[in-house]
Amino acid sequence: MIGKTEIDIRLILNLIGFFLVAEGFFMLTAIPFSLYYHDGSAYPFLFSFLITSGTGGIIWFLTRRKKKAVITKREGYVIVSFAWVSISLFGTLPFIISGTIPSFTNAFFETISGFTTTGATILTDVEVIPQGIHFWRSMTHWIGGMGIIVLSVAVLPFLGIGGLQLYSAEMPGVTKDKLHPRITETAKRLWGIYVLLTIVLTILLMLGGMSLLDSMCHSFGTLATGGFSTKNTSIGGYSSYIQYVIIIFMFLAGMNFTLHYLAMMGKLKQIWRSEEFRKYLYLLLGVSIIITVFLIWKTGAGWEKAGRDALFQVVSIVTTTGYVTADYLMWPGSLWFFIFILMFIGGMAGSTGGGIKVVRQLLLFKNAGKELKRTIHPHGIIPVRLNHEAVSQDIIFKVMAFFQLYILVFIFGAMALSFLGLNFETAVGASISALGNIGPGLGMVGPVENYSFIPPIGKWLLSFMMLLGRLELFTVLILVSPSFWKR
Amino acid sequence: MIGKTEIDIRLILNLIGFFLVAEGFFMLTAIPFSLYYHDGSAYPFLFSFLITSGTGGIIWFLTRRKKKAVITKREGYVIVSFAWVSISLFGTLPFIISGTIPSFTNAFFETISGFTTTGATILTDVEVIPQGIHFWRSMTHWIGGMGIIVLSVAVLPFLGIGGLQLYSAEMPGVTKDKLHPRITETAKRLWGIYVLLTIVLTILLMLGGMSLLDSMCHSFGTLATGGFSTKNTSIGGYSSYIQYVIIIFMFLAGMNFTLHYLAMMGKLKQIWRSEEFRKYLYLLLGVSIIITVFLIWKTGAGWEKAGRDALFQVVSIVTTTGYVTADYLMWPGSLWFFIFILMFIGGMAGSTGGGIKVVRQLLLFKNAGKELKRTIHPHGIIPVRLNHEAVSQDIIFKVMAFFQLYILVFIFGAMALSFLGLNFETAVGASISALGNIGPGLGMVGPVENYSFIPPIGKWLLSFMMLLGRLELFTVLILVSPSFWKR
Repeated sequence: MIGKTEIDIRLILNLIGFFLVAEGFFMLTAIPFSLYYHDGSAYPFLFSFLITSGTGGIIWFLTRRKKKAVITKREGYVIVSFAWVSISLFGTLPFIISGTIPSFTNAFFETISGFTTTGATILTDVEVIPQGIHFWRSMTHWIGGMGIIVLSVAVLPFLGIGGLQLYSAEMPGVTKDKLHPRITETAKRLWGIYVLLTIVLTILLMLGGMSLLDSMCHSFGTLATGGFSTKNTSIGGYSSYIQYVIIIFMFLAGMNFTLHYLAMMGKLKQIWRSEEFRKYLYLLLGVSIIITVFLIWKTGAGWEKAGRDALFQVVSIVTTTGYVTADYLMWPGSLWFFIFILMFIGGMAGSTGGGIKVVRQLLLFKNAGKELKRTIHPHGIIPVRLNHEAVSQDIIFKVMAFFQLYILVFIFGAMALSFLGLNFETAVGASISALGNIGPGLGMVGPVENYSFIPPIGKWLLSFMMLLGRLELFTVLILVSPSFWKR
Repeated sequence: MIGKTEIDIRLILNLIGFFLVAEGFFMLTAIPFSLYYHDGSAYPFLFSFLITSGTGGIIWFLTRRKKKAVITKREGYVIVSFAWVSISLFGTLPFIISGTIPSFTNAFFETISGFTTTGATILTDVEVIPQGIHFWRSMTHWIGGMGIIVLSVAVLPFLGIGGLQLYSAEMPGVTKDKLHPRITETAKRLWGIYVLLTIVLTILLMLGGMSLLDSMCHSFGTLATGGFSTKNTSIGGYSSYIQYVIIIFMFLAGMNFTLHYLAMMGKLKQIWRSEEFRKYLYLLLGVSIIITVFLIWKTGAGWEKAGRDALFQVVSIVTTTGYVTADYLMWPGSLWFFIFILMFIGGMAGSTGGGIKVVRQLLLFKNAGKELKRTIHPHGIIPVRLNHEAVSQDIIFKVMAFFQLYILVFIFGAMALSFLGLNFETAVGASISALGNIGPGLGMVGPVENYSFIPPIGKWLLSFMMLLGRLELFTVLILVSPSFWKR
């Protein structure tokens, strides 16, 4: 029945208007830094605020109603995709008005890369841009991360996508013990944790000698698993203290935020009970150890440096953050192939990380093993178990369909980029990096490179892929399926 | 219950013994060519025959029984994998004894590449090898093709793998109209068609000016979707008449052989009723037309030459034959990316072609679309339809699990090859080419290259992947799963 109701465009515009007003106010927060550094970006921010909040306010005013309307599922899909696109469109204003990124295509790529917490940049030299712009650029990550938390906890489950089913499968504590009856309340609590972690990281980075601005920017980029840095060498030029701190916080950002809540409630045992968490931890440690051993063996690096480089890159790629301290493409042998494969994993469900997600990969692997067993015993009932509980075939089915669609979009993206003239490695690397919201890729979009040379149509394609990946494919693809619009 | 019975090793050995005796006699068929061309390979074939049939005969004699035993499913898995490996082991004898391929690793790679109808070669100059050896090399394809027909029609359905379920789903004519009640009878009829098509193609090639030997070799390579040629330039040096003839027969070899049977019974309408066949045809024509247009536009080639090149390469790759008339890696733009993606398709189910198979891809695509619909209407029952009939969720589930496992093996293979020192393109190309039983890949294993330079461990890995792909993954993987051996 839900599918048959008319879409309430007025309601959708009203919400988008509200988001734009809020976005404008976020822009204002950059002005103190603009003024402190006298970088000339204060007026551009003021104008951007006026345009964004002004437009948003007018839309909101024209579409307001006395009675509060109920949002249907179909409207939900439109709102989510439309919201990300709208705030990205207006988010380009500071870049364009300040003259930092004059091209609209480039500015849109940079902004949606921020809001989707990807962290792919078209800037060839990030250190020359105004400090206020740095703040806004990293702020887009942070806002995106907030959006993702509410999306994965409250919105996607409502829309029947990935979210809740996986969530409840992987976090028995949530549905059974009723973490909190009202899910929007939960979202607010998780936001509280997000803000708290951001503050703690900012302080830790300042203690390491970073300026307030750099600390905040890197804190935003880390907690949102974004990856924009204020330095051309990303985190590579900072002390090992700072690198370790960021490793830890990338790890925390790639965790299901509900686990942080449980930790704060003192329920530490529950964290360990999460199979997804254990696999996430083992994966990071396992691959890091293998790479460390190879780095020591092949390059003669000291164990501390080798271990730190391995751990940083592995945690950064799996959590889809994208910060770098070493160029993994220059590693000996084909160690970078590990990194490439890690790009398909992603963070835990319920984290700010992108990608396929650890729990989905876990279910896929388990099911592959069970499928062999089922072939030998065709009449037995052999379910996949997660946290000792049987997972329904329906969920496995959905996970497999997601995986297949993900691979399809990845291949299509790589093919299209290849036709635009990118070589094989670059096309494949850029495709998975955008879809997984990572940032660095392979070849000419490797960890020490940037996306400036890609032709405009390629930048638009990558922007679309970032959005697809960030909104778990279905949210966006549903909008282009004919059956969605059929009455 | 079936899984609990003990495996009857005596029975397995008895069958393998029988296969080896038969293989030895096939070796004898090369001797007339050895004698005619005075190439010195007659004695090597005689010795190979004596060793192979002798060993087989002894095994068969020692394990014979009065009462005919029934083969259980578990024994079936062992027999199928073991048979392919055994005939490949003994199939190396003519190569080794004649001194054509002295290295055992190389000889095994070449032989299993033959029996799995892959067609990847380690020979850097195929034109210098004895004519009798050419005959045997191509004969391995032909025997492999016969094996595949009986496997897909009779054995795999019995083992609960892909086969029958897909088969009946995609060919309603088979199960409903009872093509023939006894499935082994069906296999024999399909063999008849296979032999007939081989004879017809041999005659057509001879009419085009090929020698009897070359005609038979290319006929074997075509009908089995193998790809071994007697020339260094594959089919590139032959007339356009021969190229068109081979295009048509590759197309026929990539078709479900049951459709040929129906055609011979005069039921031509039933062929068109097969959705898999229509999609197979549209895919080949569609991609060929796109490539043709690009080739004319970018290279200024004539339409006949461009169309022939496009059609030949597309049909060859989709059917997983692997013959070439043009180096697709040298095509302008990134047209080769089409070829790369086609490597993941494969022929129709029930053909001699390898790969994922058209019907599986078709079901995956349809299901992806339905999954979007299901997300919008979570309470509706929205089945995937094939030939106007609903396909059960169980079959879709199995197809998705197969796809996922296939991608996993492909990625693992590419990673391992990369660690052995192959560059990205070569590693990726060799991995999918071996798994899909194609032959040519990308980069250094492209259409005008060969596999001689790959380190021995890489050749063994690729040999294993050819076997995995040929036996539809599960048959082989089940043998290495602990639950298979658990009592």
